[in-house]
Amino acid sequence: MPGNSFGQLFKVTTFGESHGPSLGAVVDGCPPGLELSEEDLQEALDRRRPGQSRYTTARREADEVRILSGVFEGKTTGTPIGLLIENTDQRSQDYSKIKDTFRPGHADYTYEHKYGIRDYRGGGRSSARETAMRVAAGAIAEKLLAQKGIKIQAALTQMGNIKAEQIDWQEVRNNELFCGDVNAIEPMQTLIKQLLKEGDSVGARIRVQATGVPPGWGEPVFDRLDADLAKALMSINAVKAVSVGDGFDVVTQKGSEHRDEMTKNGFLSNHSGGVLGGISSGQPVMADIALKPTSSISISGQTIDKWGNDQPVVTKGRHDPCVGIRAVPIVEAMTSLVLVDHWLRQRAQNAQVKTETPDISR
Amino acid sequence: MPGNSFGQLFKVTTFGESHGPSLGAVVDGCPPGLELSEEDLQEALDRRRPGQSRYTTARREADEVRILSGVFEGKTTGTPIGLLIENTDQRSQDYSKIKDTFRPGHADYTYEHKYGIRDYRGGGRSSARETAMRVAAGAIAEKLLAQKGIKIQAALTQMGNIKAEQIDWQEVRNNELFCGDVNAIEPMQTLIKQLLKEGDSVGARIRVQATGVPPGWGEPVFDRLDADLAKALMSINAVKAVSVGDGFDVVTQKGSEHRDEMTKNGFLSNHSGGVLGGISSGQPVMADIALKPTSSISISGQTIDKWGNDQPVVTKGRHDPCVGIRAVPIVEAMTSLVLVDHWLRQRAQNAQVKTETPDISR
Amino acid sequence: MPGNSFGQLFKVTTFGESHGPSLGAVVDGCPPGLELSEEDLQEALDRRRPGQSRYTTARREADEVRILSGVFEGKTTGTPIGLLIENTDQRSQDYSKIKDTFRPGHADYTYEHKYGIRDYRGGGRSSARETAMRVAAGAIAEKLLAQKGIKIQAALTQMGNIKAEQIDWQEVRNNELFCGDVNAIEPMQTLIKQLLKEGDSVGARIRVQATGVPPGWGEPVFDRLDADLAKALMSINAVKAVSVGDGFDVVTQKGSEHRDEMTKNGFLSNHSGGVLGGISSGQPVMADIALKPTSSISISGQTIDKWGNDQPVVTKGRHDPCVGIRAVPIVEAMTSLVLVDHWLRQRAQNAQVKTETPDISR
Amino acid sequence: MPGNSFGQLFKVTTFGESHGPSLGAVVDGCPPGLELSEEDLQEALDRRRPGQSRYTTARREADEVRILSGVFEGKTTGTPIGLLIENTDQRSQDYSKIKDTFRPGHADYTYEHKYGIRDYRGGGRSSARETAMRVAAGAIAEKLLAQKGIKIQAALTQMGNIKAEQIDWQEVRNNELFCGDVNAIEPMQTLIKQLLKEGDSVGARIRVQATGVPPGWGEPVFDRLDADLAKALMSINAVKAVSVGDGFDVVTQKGSEHRDEMTKNGFLSNHSGGVLGGISSGQPVMADIALKPTSSISISGQTIDKWGNDQPVVTKGRHDPCVGIRAVPIVEAMTSLVLVDHWLRQRAQNAQVKTETPDISR
Repeated sequence: MPGNSFGQLFKVTTFGESHGPSLGAVVDGCPPGLELSEEDLQEALDRRRPGQSRYTTARREADEVRILSGVFEGKTTGTPIGLLIENTDQRSQDYSKIKDTFRPGHADYTYEHKYGIRDYRGGGRSSARETAMRVAAGAIAEKLLAQKGIKIQAALTQMGNIKAEQIDWQEVRNNELFCGDVNAIEPMQTLIKQLLKEGDSVGARIRVQATGVPPGWGEPVFDRLDADLAKALMSINAVKAVSVGDGFDVVTQKGSEHRDEMTKNGFLSNHSGGVLGGISSGQPVMADIALKPTSSISISGQTIDKWGNDQPVVTKGRHDPCVGIRAVPIVEAMTSLVLVDHWLRQRAQNAQVKTETPDISR
Repeated sequence: MPGNSFGQLFKVTTFGESHGPSLGAVVDGCPPGLELSEEDLQEALDRRRPGQSRYTTARREADEVRILSGVFEGKTTGTPIGLLIENTDQRSQDYSKIKDTFRPGHADYTYEHKYGIRDYRGGGRSSARETAMRVAAGAIAEKLLAQKGIKIQAALTQMGNIKAEQIDWQEVRNNELFCGDVNAIEPMQTLIKQLLKEGDSVGARIRVQATGVPPGWGEPVFDRLDADLAKALMSINAVKAVSVGDGFDVVTQKGSEHRDEMTKNGFLSNHSGGVLGGISSGQPVMADIALKPTSSISISGQTIDKWGNDQPVVTKGRHDPCVGIRAVPIVEAMTSLVLVDHWLRQRAQNAQVKTETPDISR
Repeated sequence: MPGNSFGQLFKVTTFGESHGPSLGAVVDGCPPGLELSEEDLQEALDRRRPGQSRYTTARREADEVRILSGVFEGKTTGTPIGLLIENTDQRSQDYSKIKDTFRPGHADYTYEHKYGIRDYRGGGRSSARETAMRVAAGAIAEKLLAQKGIKIQAALTQMGNIKAEQIDWQEVRNNELFCGDVNAIEPMQTLIKQLLKEGDSVGARIRVQATGVPPGWGEPVFDRLDADLAKALMSINAVKAVSVGDGFDVVTQKGSEHRDEMTKNGFLSNHSGGVLGGISSGQPVMADIALKPTSSISISGQTIDKWGNDQPVVTKGRHDPCVGIRAVPIVEAMTSLVLVDHWLRQRAQNAQVKTETPDISR
Repeated sequence: MPGNSFGQLFKVTTFGESHGPSLGAVVDGCPPGLELSEEDLQEALDRRRPGQSRYTTARREADEVRILSGVFEGKTTGTPIGLLIENTDQRSQDYSKIKDTFRPGHADYTYEHKYGIRDYRGGGRSSARETAMRVAAGAIAEKLLAQKGIKIQAALTQMGNIKAEQIDWQEVRNNELFCGDVNAIEPMQTLIKQLLKEGDSVGARIRVQATGVPPGWGEPVFDRLDADLAKALMSINAVKAVSVGDGFDVVTQKGSEHRDEMTKNGFLSNHSGGVLGGISSGQPVMADIALKPTSSISISGQTIDKWGNDQPVVTKGRHDPCVGIRAVPIVEAMTSLVLVDHWLRQRAQNAQVKTETPDISR
């Protein structure tokens, strides 16, 4: 099984290299009748786009998405939705340095071993540029979920040692850092400026939350909602950790403390992060991820070339000192894709389920 | 897509409820010619089995596995391998208490909302008993990988506040806690005794490591090796977090610190945990997980019944104060399943790949 | 992808060899709440069972099926349904003749080339005995469809040169040949007796029909209802041809003759066999298949042994002179599996579809 | 599962409507290192293109295919190959007649019931225009297979009552009808002229043959080589029947006649069509299909409109009197896709299989 598709019933397949002619995606399985325009997707793409702020790379990607199929007279038809973004900014750069030399911390060395050949320009397929298509596809999922009252939001909660002490979800999209704590913004900006000066980078932490998810989504025992979410988030470039609910903090918790007790008026806590036994509980689904500091820095490092010889390397060009910022819309997109897929899966098998038990989270 | 299968080319499908007649699995895609006996599987199952030590539940599960197909004259034939364990220990218990009352922190409430019906006896399908089949299937994967020089090992690295300061892999299977630090064993045993007295439970942390994985395994962009590993480990009962390499520590790292520099004699560090761009680098694959404290405790808690009325609940019966201990062999099994699947996937598409680049991790 | 699973949302995975310890299946994706007992499955199995009549092989297979999971208090729970039949009739036969010699027309030679190893006893996995599990799984599908008013029936329509001139569906299950034309039964019985005397076999033709299928099932462009049906039926042992509606007769038809005209009172014909553009039209779904004469005959033939040497071969033992007879319940089962899968698929994506267009087939 | 993907390891996903902005495909799983250019694909597309001869529709489709990804410096890289054809010939036609009226024999009525909405222009997604992408993707598969000495060829063997008495494979691509019998060409041309005059159409029969397929490809028990081939061919627009080897003729054959006897110098016949037990035998793989006469004819017929009222209908515009002709390259493409997928599947699981048995078909 080649690995460029995500989802079972709402299936997204992406293609395209960083410096190839274009990026594309096919969204297969979108229910018919959804009002959809290129503007819907563009809005999400613009949020992810670098060159937005002075804290993300200066590369000017127009990222203008076209819908090539599956939409007729403004509505989805149930047939596959083809999406395309032309790569307009392919300046002929000098790639002779990285053509035969593997940048440490990148996928250059591993692609060489896997495929024996690679499009080295800008990282080719391994570039974060590929995630533009995830954002476009995710915007369709997000729109479907919004109709069911489900809202997905992500926020930057830590950059290096600077933590957001709280998340004001109203605030998140008001600042270029997608940070929910106004007090953390200035220190983060200062850190970025310093990193730009040093030619270094730093890691980040992101929180994602989905509210309005009804109880019953998720397919035990392997395709659990949290397991699929873990895969979705770990598949984002630079992500090294995914946790749900209290995450690693559960290690020191006791059972009497962790279990989310229930009353007819609702759950008394949400340590579980909205998932029990791999199935949504109706509480907000909550997850956190860690993103590594990008290895594209201008401080010289040791590496090898294609033939195994030692070589020094410096990554030149436009790069983010904290890739975590740009990842926020991607995290929202991937979370949306997981949820919409599980919605359709639940509908397939359990459309006629009836229970006397109330949804205590409403 | 129903969710009871794992893997694409080495596909495991499990079935069975905790207190039903039996547990079973089908392993489809095992290459022919592997020497395989029931003893190979039993050894792995015995490691997972409760009643092993006084620290895990006293339930006596014989867990005797039978191979029903796919093996002829001691060798796999390439046809599906059917596995079965009869549930011999189905004492007629009194389930009237949990029949209509949802235990907090369990899947009772979510199964009710998903399916409208559930086998409440011992948690039914949501019981950790299901993982016995994962261990049996994983033992086949492990044997295939061993022939390629790949070794998968997991260890308990933390229980509550007690940390293993190191992992002596030789030591891990010598003690009932699968702990790699002899100094941590006694404090852990003391904690367990105390928890048993209190009727409470505690969380745990497990490290898993795979050595000998060649560079090139993993399918970008979605089916990355680390993404599939995240899903596999998050699908284990009680797991709330998965990290690869330095995990959440990367948040505060700088790029100059994190990137694993390379020389012709090897990598200078392994912050990445053996995966770059979703593809194995040849370094040890390293991951950590967090397991929540079980909610099956004898301290009374608040919950609701099937009709939404408030009810107190106490979980009686045999339960582990720390389910993390028993999870160690399951973690090894799931890691093996991910690796063997990616080995076959790599072989399918890239069997003829040639490169001049040496494997610097050898 | 190993090939022992069928279906996407109602997924059946089978395992087991003809002379191994048992046959089994996992049915994953059955909606919860269906009343289901072992008797439901046994009835279908008994129809397929050899030793039923004097026209099918005398082998006494008890074929007693057990439900191992997924059913609780008489109803399906939405979790995977494990099915098992123990092979009680494994007399220790003398297989030395076929151990190293490939029977012509069988899978012996191709299994050897594929796997390099094979369970030669009774054909191992390639034996039609495997289809018992398809029948058991199909019975679950059939029960689900029956609740929606869908009825699947197959009949033997030709044996050698003897054709059934009509199909009286009431008659089909009244005779051991599943033939819908009472006038054809005696000639067919005479032919069978003659073949038994000669030690030879003959081919057959089967018609299958599904009534009550609503318009809208089938997923263009690849997973069309007729394409999936073609795969399902061609996957049955000995089947060499599948046609839908008028089948090969369309070659000589004109467009003005073939197109099924429509009026508000219904279609004026059903040349299409109930499928247009890969989607059900509401008319009866109709298909025909051809089954080859079994190669298990007692007339000596030429073949080679494992090392490529010429060898004569005679197949001894109990065999059907016309395997087409026993295939009738298998054809019904596979058709049911295709339909139930497409029902769930339609429900997943198009559960909320509304149209002003009446279903003219009602 | 949405249905717009074909193949497991060499996976093709298509999108696009007849009169939408473009048609596209993603080929995921192509091994790296294959030399590939747009010319390779264009050659195959040109063969399928209407407007080629005066016997196929006059519509001028440029069908110029672009490769958008997955190829670098003239070679495939192992990443997904994006393909695109812009629809340049979208004249603004008058679709008011078919907007609300269902053409009999087309998918109009069934799409309405399935999706509740449809792109009615030129049949939208149900148009045979979609198959252009199959041909483009198939050309990649064909090139991979050619490197292994495998050759796939199809020919028109019957049109209406006119049969090709033989197939001279050298001749097939020399004439616009893809007919292998020079004596049948003139009568077929005469028939087409007559149909054009009458405004009617006729059915056709096509044979496809693959030589050089080694023994061992195909995955029992469901994903048999012939079962997957049946699905692939039945998924082509207008196909109503698929047979392998002797097809429906086996009904009247005896076992002593049908079984393909073997000697050390090869098989003595090929009644099976190169597949035994669902696995290739090394003999030529042979299949036949029937294509219905197109319902796009200018003879008035009865139908209903969107609200269920009776309406007369005449299909105007450019249409083939025998769609079977254009289907020949599509049949080759789909056969190639099946074979390349099974090659990769065989390589995944059975790469290390060894046998002492010679391949008697060489």
